[in-house]
Amino acid sequence: MLDTEIAASMQNLDGWSRDGNTIVKTYHFANYHETMAFVNATAWISHRTDHHPDLTVGYNQCTVAYTTHSAGGLSRKDFACAARVDALLAL
Amino acid sequence: MLDTEIAASMQNLDGWSRDGNTIVKTYHFANYHETMAFVNATAWISHRTDHHPDLTVGYNQCTVAYTTHSAGGLSRKDFACAARVDALLAL
Repeated sequence: MLDTEIAASMQNLDGWSRDGNTIVKTYHFANYHETMAFVNATAWISHRTDHHPDLTVGYNQCTVAYTTHSAGGLSRKDFACAARVDALLAL
Repeated sequence: MLDTEIAASMQNLDGWSRDGNTIVKTYHFANYHETMAFVNATAWISHRTDHHPDLTVGYNQCTVAYTTHSAGGLSRKDFACAARVDALLAL
């Protein structure tokens, strides 16, 4: 994706930031159980979309980082999946 | 813990390395399902021991990082829990 496309796609996401070839967001939770439920819901999305972000899991937070290794950078799939993960919080 | 105690405790673990106030090990798996099963088994250990490592989860690997925030560094609990996570792989 061109930088201009990336910038436009970022506008459609809330709370995500770009770090080079990656888009990143940290989600905060009330406790470890909520955190792990989120991790597993995100893993399900990863499985069904066949697109697997790096997850960094702490006691009450999880950072999700998407990139597309096969594209050598960001792709539309990263933004589509980021929106799907965000949608978990809208439930 | 003193550096000498830490060094001695490291001798009892296989594949862990020290990174400042943290001990770290990366586990590799055949696929995403195995990785997530490991993540959840580790989360169960975290819950029952009330000691929560940082987990960094990729498609086929998970890095586990233990430190004891309340102690401002490594504690015996880090080593005890590291051994418990290792024991998952011995099942």
